[in-house]
Amino acid sequence: MLTVDAKPYPFAFPPTQTALLIIDMQRDFLLPNGFGEIQAGSLQAVQASIAPTKKLLDKFRQANLPIFHTREGHKPDLSDCPSNKLIRQKGFRDKIQGLKVIGDKGEMGRLLVRGAIGHDFVDELRAVPGEVVVDKPGRGAFFNTKLMDRLKAKAITHLIICGVTTECCFDTTFREANDRGFECCGVEDATAGYKDEFKLSVLDMIHWSEGLFGFVASLQPLLETLESFTRSLAFVGDNTSAQTAANFDGVLSIPSLQKAYRTGLSPVTVIEIVFDRVQRYKKVDPAVWIHLETEASALERARKLLSDWPDRSRLPPLFGVPFSVKDSFDIAGLPTTTACPPLTRVPSKSALAYDLLLEQGAIFIGKTNLDQLATGLTGCRSPFGIPRSMLHHDYISGGSSSGSCVSVGAGLVTFSLGTDTAGSGRIPAAFNGVVGYKPTRGLISAQGVTPACLSLDCVAIIAGNVSDARTVWDLCAKYDEEDPYAKVTVPIQRHINSTGPQAKIFTFGIPPLEALAICNPAYRRKFDESVQSLHAMGGILRPIDWSFFEKAGKLLYEGSFVSERLASLPDDWLEKNRDHLHPVIRDIFENVVTRESTAIQAYRDLQAKAFYTRKAEKTFAYDASGIDVLVVPTAPTHWTVEEVLADPMATNSVLGEFSHFGNVLDLCAVAVPAGTCPVSELQGKPDAEGVLPFSVTFLGGSMMDGETLEIARRFEEHMS
Amino acid sequence: MLTVDAKPYPFAFPPTQTALLIIDMQRDFLLPNGFGEIQAGSLQAVQASIAPTKKLLDKFRQANLPIFHTREGHKPDLSDCPSNKLIRQKGFRDKIQGLKVIGDKGEMGRLLVRGAIGHDFVDELRAVPGEVVVDKPGRGAFFNTKLMDRLKAKAITHLIICGVTTECCFDTTFREANDRGFECCGVEDATAGYKDEFKLSVLDMIHWSEGLFGFVASLQPLLETLESFTRSLAFVGDNTSAQTAANFDGVLSIPSLQKAYRTGLSPVTVIEIVFDRVQRYKKVDPAVWIHLETEASALERARKLLSDWPDRSRLPPLFGVPFSVKDSFDIAGLPTTTACPPLTRVPSKSALAYDLLLEQGAIFIGKTNLDQLATGLTGCRSPFGIPRSMLHHDYISGGSSSGSCVSVGAGLVTFSLGTDTAGSGRIPAAFNGVVGYKPTRGLISAQGVTPACLSLDCVAIIAGNVSDARTVWDLCAKYDEEDPYAKVTVPIQRHINSTGPQAKIFTFGIPPLEALAICNPAYRRKFDESVQSLHAMGGILRPIDWSFFEKAGKLLYEGSFVSERLASLPDDWLEKNRDHLHPVIRDIFENVVTRESTAIQAYRDLQAKAFYTRKAEKTFAYDASGIDVLVVPTAPTHWTVEEVLADPMATNSVLGEFSHFGNVLDLCAVAVPAGTCPVSELQGKPDAEGVLPFSVTFLGGSMMDGETLEIARRFEEHMS
Repeated sequence: MLTVDAKPYPFAFPPTQTALLIIDMQRDFLLPNGFGEIQAGSLQAVQASIAPTKKLLDKFRQANLPIFHTREGHKPDLSDCPSNKLIRQKGFRDKIQGLKVIGDKGEMGRLLVRGAIGHDFVDELRAVPGEVVVDKPGRGAFFNTKLMDRLKAKAITHLIICGVTTECCFDTTFREANDRGFECCGVEDATAGYKDEFKLSVLDMIHWSEGLFGFVASLQPLLETLESFTRSLAFVGDNTSAQTAANFDGVLSIPSLQKAYRTGLSPVTVIEIVFDRVQRYKKVDPAVWIHLETEASALERARKLLSDWPDRSRLPPLFGVPFSVKDSFDIAGLPTTTACPPLTRVPSKSALAYDLLLEQGAIFIGKTNLDQLATGLTGCRSPFGIPRSMLHHDYISGGSSSGSCVSVGAGLVTFSLGTDTAGSGRIPAAFNGVVGYKPTRGLISAQGVTPACLSLDCVAIIAGNVSDARTVWDLCAKYDEEDPYAKVTVPIQRHINSTGPQAKIFTFGIPPLEALAICNPAYRRKFDESVQSLHAMGGILRPIDWSFFEKAGKLLYEGSFVSERLASLPDDWLEKNRDHLHPVIRDIFENVVTRESTAIQAYRDLQAKAFYTRKAEKTFAYDASGIDVLVVPTAPTHWTVEEVLADPMATNSVLGEFSHFGNVLDLCAVAVPAGTCPVSELQGKPDAEGVLPFSVTFLGGSMMDGETLEIARRFEEHMS
Repeated sequence: MLTVDAKPYPFAFPPTQTALLIIDMQRDFLLPNGFGEIQAGSLQAVQASIAPTKKLLDKFRQANLPIFHTREGHKPDLSDCPSNKLIRQKGFRDKIQGLKVIGDKGEMGRLLVRGAIGHDFVDELRAVPGEVVVDKPGRGAFFNTKLMDRLKAKAITHLIICGVTTECCFDTTFREANDRGFECCGVEDATAGYKDEFKLSVLDMIHWSEGLFGFVASLQPLLETLESFTRSLAFVGDNTSAQTAANFDGVLSIPSLQKAYRTGLSPVTVIEIVFDRVQRYKKVDPAVWIHLETEASALERARKLLSDWPDRSRLPPLFGVPFSVKDSFDIAGLPTTTACPPLTRVPSKSALAYDLLLEQGAIFIGKTNLDQLATGLTGCRSPFGIPRSMLHHDYISGGSSSGSCVSVGAGLVTFSLGTDTAGSGRIPAAFNGVVGYKPTRGLISAQGVTPACLSLDCVAIIAGNVSDARTVWDLCAKYDEEDPYAKVTVPIQRHINSTGPQAKIFTFGIPPLEALAICNPAYRRKFDESVQSLHAMGGILRPIDWSFFEKAGKLLYEGSFVSERLASLPDDWLEKNRDHLHPVIRDIFENVVTRESTAIQAYRDLQAKAFYTRKAEKTFAYDASGIDVLVVPTAPTHWTVEEVLADPMATNSVLGEFSHFGNVLDLCAVAVPAGTCPVSELQGKPDAEGVLPFSVTFLGGSMMDGETLEIARRFEEHMS
């Protein structure tokens, strides 16, 4: 925690969970002939706030801390401008002949209209890649904007607020943020308005009565606090011209790469390291990749990034970060196989998530192996071979995102995009000691991803740790109107707890003993240890009704839901391609056909799903009865390849025990490594060698991704 | 419009769309030993605001205008209190030994905790039935509350705001309301805070710069404006003891009854009138009712209401308002037949909507006839007889809510609860000259209503006019966690347009010529006239893509959706009850079974539904491309009973052409009378006698009920 002197008492804030929120430092409010001067008069005070704000912004950038910029303005058709705003303005115009109002053409383009020069930030305070720009139609930055979602996506709890004007957008936003639970501190010399007495009064109200709305600090002590924090990081002595890898420890985590790139590492070096690892790992396991980029093309991409981003202190967040994607994602010009040769096609358009990651500087390495048609949890159902757990080659990698999880687990890439319709992102993450995160359905576009069970399909993120998974999610989650299942992220009407014991305490539920009986005894013990750790972290165990989670899970394969896997294929597809399918997949599909589930059964199952979903909502209620997270073993056991090949269906079915319901109930879920398990214990054979990873999954309510990731991250921190 | 002198210029407001919003006049903020005194000190100013606020409240009550009260406070477990609020308070306590904070036990119960005496309003300002109480956890009344929804449900555009404290909850709420488009006026002598200079500064900021956030008026001129408005109503001279029906014109509309009851009419008189009409109408049409209350029991209810509510100036909004319900609603102790004798059962619990209406003082008259199992649009499919259009007895009443619509159309009751799964509320409303409103799915609980097609079923409201339908909706729409399809009304991130031309202009779309070709030529002409009226009202016609509305509609009966009608019944139900079903219903169900729709088809249809729903969202987008409402003929034609009996399936199918898609796409829809059509024209026989009603339906986007009802009301007003 950092602390800065403030009114009414010192403001303490956790730096990595604190964002700088700069309000409306737009030309229209700060420059001559802009909206502000036209409407309100003198620019002296507001212009004087530019330099202090710049100092604050620079310090936040040096410290690599989150930065948000807001801009007030409207769509060109003014459809997001309430008429009371327009009309009162025009009332004003009636008094002063020729006065321009919102939407009129001024010297810097249309006043307060998005896209106009005047609407954008003053040159000194332009946003750089990785900083969030929030366009807002109102004075408060929380109404009709993405601000709350973006803050939650970044796990922000504290805000340092500056900008213009104090009496209007600064104050309104400050009040809104305080109501939503954010601990806020205004910076008195980095905010200004059009009338000095209003500014004084607003700041007084904020800190009056022991902090009615929050804190007010002065710029200088805040700069000093941030300066000493920055000095404690290794960024000091940034050398933007050095091209040595001196500061790179070989770890491909996002912060490690960001730090190394900032201090001069070349992405060319990283790509060389990555391809060396990939080639060496091919000898260990040749079944990881379906398509690999050539080293030459990846190096070209790295060199392009170098020339595109010459300033090492202003890099996009995924600059030079290597990643893979499951081969069910479309990449323009490359075949999408979905591990099913008869389905292979070469798309002309890439999946949106892939494009968004490239925009942020990531480097694509290749497409990974998977269970055919993303159907399976074992990793043993691909014509491209069977990837093995990167910790022990007798053991399955898990599936269907098998290659994705091995590529991350083996340190070949920083992260991978997989999918998760029944656990396909979580199970293989568990078996390779990495994090597998299934966001709430529809937060990441599934367009350009081969459907498995369209209404349940989720893009999953595989990463080495929870923070990296969160970062990738934050950068590729975007509403896509082309995805019929995309969710508009309407802000949840729920505050955050930023301070005090409430910020640390969380409540959790676990499956009952009977449900855990399916687990391998060694896993059972590991799970108990994890629960002990949760208690030690401040977690409070609450009883839950497990029965409907169990019933919801059974809908997936024991009911009619599996029929949806055939719904995206033509009627005669199975008939025509029977002989070209993996035998296990063929059997599954034939079983679906043989079962002849009726539409009536489908509607009954969907009614049951609606009922269980409502029950889940109650379980995750934000009150004295609800839980924040449900914690389960990610998988009940870890099979050997031999065991799976001997009974492909039954082994697969066991694996989904604690994952299926997450998809049916549209929960978010993060599988996190929770120590290791000696093979000897897992097998009950004292002389067996090696260890395997154990994993628990944190499941949160629909749309509670930000909160669930944070609890998972704290567990990960506790376990390390 | 009323006008009151204000800063920065006179405040004009439409009285029936203006609410009084009283902020936090709670004991905890106003009385000794409450939270406010403990935290902030002197009560002098805030106590002085009670009397002026009381004057304002009394004037609003006299004028029968909408009143909202907010209360700040928390659930007993404090789960809705953000930790920054609690912690800063406790920081304060550390300084002042023994100081009490939120949740601590004070002399008026736990401080700021719901249910405590101190949390409630001061005696002078208690809410009375019909006034809305909004419990809020924050300072702003829009965060994590139902305020926005309730304001929109009542079509409020203007707010007169008073209460405590000016610097905190008053100001925060004022700013939030302004951003959301409400035109707001603060009342300077009816607001106060704990520090005078803050109050002055806040009020100055509100009206500075020609009304940065709105207007500020003084109490006295406002009271005078309201007084003259009240005098213009007939309420002056309220005589709370008179029991004469002098002021009752026999019209059963809600305002007419409210006015009559206020001036002394007895509900006993109304019940006598109603039963007289019912008995006389039985001779005209014996097929309206399945169950009628006895006159004695209804009179007993009326007398009970009289004794429960002795003060005629403080009546619940549905005091003495007679209503019927479709006989697919459960009422404890009465048989629910759903017009299907083998399904009849006597429930022990009533439908939630019914209970909520009784709470508001409504008087239940009876259960009405319907198409068996709520399946059909003709009204000709009941073993209890065929109700006829109340305008012409050769013509069908429409269905399935046949009896409900006749009972309202014939003036037997004020309103009726029906259902609408494919048009069952709208079509019979059209054929009986009344309003049929199908809210967005899940806003009114469907628990306790016999399922037709569970995932699509909506409770529908049948009323004599749009305002009455809105009032009933406002009073019985309540989130019901027992209904798996209930929607939590998350406030739409969309402002309202309260003033100026934007408040009157609306955009609309209509079906293309090819689609309208299905209409009877007379209906086609009537529809053109309605479109002309829409233009005349300020409606702007925009092109739309009709194709997916059409395709969505076809999913209902041409796809697998109809199978859901069997999903709520046991597998062997049809087999067992075949002989007891209405022949047409039996044929439909047998067709469903014969069709053997598969689960795969069902999932394909659902994927198509998701796709069309996304398209609908775009059509109703709130920008230069979208429309506010889609306007269609409610039905393409009006069949005679004879025509329907000759070909029950085909005639029924035609009727759903413009209603089915509304259910599939989860739109809200209001069918409104749009003039009449001579039978001679409809039949193309110059010598046919009589007229029949024509109706158009206004469909709005999901959750846009408030906005859609308002446009429908303006059309109704324009047509009258």
